Amino acid sequence: MSENNDFDVTAEAARVKLAARALARCEREAKDDALHKMADALRERTDDLVAQNALDLERAHERGLEPAFIDRLALDPARVEKMALALEEVASLPDPVGRIERSERRPNGLTVARQRIPLGVIGIIYESRPNVTSDAAGLCLKSGNGVVLKGGSDAYRSNRAVHAALTLGLERSALPPAARGAIGFVDTTDRDAVRVLLGLSEHLDVIIPRGGKRLIRFVHEHARVPVIKHDEGVCHVVVDETARPDRVDAILVNSKAQRPGVCNAAETILFTEKGARVHLGRALGALAAAGVTCHCDARALAIAREAGVPEANLREGGDDAFAREFLSLDVAVGVVDDLDGAIAHIDRFSSQHTEVILTEDYTVSRRFLREVDSSTVIVNASTRFADGGQLGLGAEIGISTTRLHAYGPMGLEELTTTKFVVTGDGQIRS
Amino acid sequence: MSENNDFDVTAEAARVKLAARALARCEREAKDDALHKMADALRERTDDLVAQNALDLERAHERGLEPAFIDRLALDPARVEKMALALEEVASLPDPVGRIERSERRPNGLTVARQRIPLGVIGIIYESRPNVTSDAAGLCLKSGNGVVLKGGSDAYRSNRAVHAALTLGLERSALPPAARGAIGFVDTTDRDAVRVLLGLSEHLDVIIPRGGKRLIRFVHEHARVPVIKHDEGVCHVVVDETARPDRVDAILVNSKAQRPGVCNAAETILFTEKGARVHLGRALGALAAAGVTCHCDARALAIAREAGVPEANLREGGDDAFAREFLSLDVAVGVVDDLDGAIAHIDRFSSQHTEVILTEDYTVSRRFLREVDSSTVIVNASTRFADGGQLGLGAEIGISTTRLHAYGPMGLEELTTTKFVVTGDGQIRS
Repeated sequence: MSENNDFDVTAEAARVKLAARALARCEREAKDDALHKMADALRERTDDLVAQNALDLERAHERGLEPAFIDRLALDPARVEKMALALEEVASLPDPVGRIERSERRPNGLTVARQRIPLGVIGIIYESRPNVTSDAAGLCLKSGNGVVLKGGSDAYRSNRAVHAALTLGLERSALPPAARGAIGFVDTTDRDAVRVLLGLSEHLDVIIPRGGKRLIRFVHEHARVPVIKHDEGVCHVVVDETARPDRVDAILVNSKAQRPGVCNAAETILFTEKGARVHLGRALGALAAAGVTCHCDARALAIAREAGVPEANLREGGDDAFAREFLSLDVAVGVVDDLDGAIAHIDRFSSQHTEVILTEDYTVSRRFLREVDSSTVIVNASTRFADGGQLGLGAEIGISTTRLHAYGPMGLEELTTTKFVVTGDGQIRS
Repeated sequence: MSENNDFDVTAEAARVKLAARALARCEREAKDDALHKMADALRERTDDLVAQNALDLERAHERGLEPAFIDRLALDPARVEKMALALEEVASLPDPVGRIERSERRPNGLTVARQRIPLGVIGIIYESRPNVTSDAAGLCLKSGNGVVLKGGSDAYRSNRAVHAALTLGLERSALPPAARGAIGFVDTTDRDAVRVLLGLSEHLDVIIPRGGKRLIRFVHEHARVPVIKHDEGVCHVVVDETARPDRVDAILVNSKAQRPGVCNAAETILFTEKGARVHLGRALGALAAAGVTCHCDARALAIAREAGVPEANLREGGDDAFAREFLSLDVAVGVVDDLDGAIAHIDRFSSQHTEVILTEDYTVSRRFLREVDSSTVIVNASTRFADGGQLGLGAEIGISTTRLHAYGPMGLEELTTTKFVVTGDGQIRS
């Protein structure tokens, strides 16, 4: 069933590693020129991209894949334009490479600083969205990294066409020829290719998997290369009795319903016991009016019914619901005793992505920020701000739920590391 | 042959994980108090430590282990005092946990910052030196991390005694009881314990192996937990014709001979062709006078002999010598065409630890700093400065040759990560 089975993944990674060494030494000007040429090439190839995508879509329909999946897979001229614009936006961002940080003069006169350098070669393993091919390639190129892209086989023809366009752009760019191979592509649908990629510790410096639980688990089990997980988001919003009612309703609805299918949508709402008495009925009414179904534990359900929340929007919930990433207009609702109860609940069920508290109590806000150790903790704003663009990173390659290296939204800087740069005047150690 | 085989490594790690949650929330005052109490307990238990160490030493002599190995293993009251002082020094360092970094007000009024938090639980796998037990425990405690210590079986009784003393200190400290279990110890010499530890991805956030090539390779092959390698140091010093002769001789001798058995000692000296004509004979004479044997490639050997470097200090070298970490008064010497040749040589043979260039040429220095991407690059100073203390980190848990998370010497800050802390006034996303 799979195509191009004799593709040599290892050779591709080795080729990228060599090009990445050259790219690491390129100046911003050349890299930005390449990003613009890549955007131009995408626009120029729009017809081809849409035609190749149609073949993927046809196959997806034949296989009876879900409409939401097919929507993520689909390319049209407007989406191609968006991909091109995204590359141009990356070109406009500052280049982290070469930046000097924490420069210090030591007592013996040595100057010690850290300088940002690319990570090296990054493997990206992703699923159905073809725009990830150009988004990830653009971010890796700007940060001076080689990249080996492995998209889902359902998007194989689309991804291959996007990659071909990007390569055309590189060839026309101001990059030196040696650096133009820095965007690699695993040009096969052979399932074994992922396993091979995960073993290439000599060629790859890190692998970033973006996708569902099954992909993340597979990567975790087989990787011999360091992995930065982009895991699911079981995001919590905690409400206490001091929170402002208008903010509670607006933030809950925004967190859950503004875009329910993404990882920073709220999946669980917790009311402290006192908070439930003040807010639960009204807030669940607002959620119901926004089309949300609330999966309530016993305490929450009793209060919701008493308050007259429409029965059609209520379900019995509990631990199963608390563990779920719904990605739909469904949310788990629970009542906990107090802040300690809320923190204990989050400790147990959180995926370390994003947690919000709605409160006007100074001490409660301070304790929540300090004691909850998810990658993003928020007071009095929507979970939906847990996003690289919203938090000021410019763009994002993913949201890390791995504590090492980068935790939370990852932008260009998180695709770099630092080396120590030391300059002296003949110092020796005594 | 092994002892205490029924020790439950997983249970120990789970216990530490729980304590680490409590420790992460402790203030600096309590942690510093614990470090002082740990130091006191080491001093108080000096006799016991030396007696337990004597049992390890006896076994090491029976097994005919090398004198250098036995020296690293040995404890006496002076070395115990040094361990205690090291803990007190860690207490005096600033606490990175809780520090707010890069705080920014977004256009919509949200305040976005990053706050330093502990990594979680750190596994340290090390070999014969019992002081690593207390040094690593102290750094992990100060940075709010739980630690699971796995020392070499040759130092088992010494490490167990050190750990018992540290635990006594914790029990007497101002830390809350829940946090006092944060220093864990793999209390068995069962070889399988390391393999079990390497699989505990639910309990450990990172593993730092410190030891020889075999240990690093074993860890790399079996770890399901992220690893930060502390690998060998094949450090290079490059000399060009513009370098000042007095600095060349002093820095070469210091880099190689001041302490040849450590990872930041120089292992290869490269002269550019012009540099060799100006410096090679004289510099190798200075090295010979310091007792160093030079393993020269053909070009270097010819010049050295012509210059009358004592034959007793010369050997034929080449690729084998260039790949070696001698850790002795031996060094590989080569002649390369020019700076490009030196950089290409380093690309091929370096272990990404530390590289030095000796030059008075501005452009050469700038190119070297930029194009060599080892974790520490130095101009006109000794390789021996590649050390956390020397570079201003206060203390060091190791020197990472892994590019991810931390690259180069790792201090307290490198044992932490950051979370995003966001505060708002009801902001929702439109």
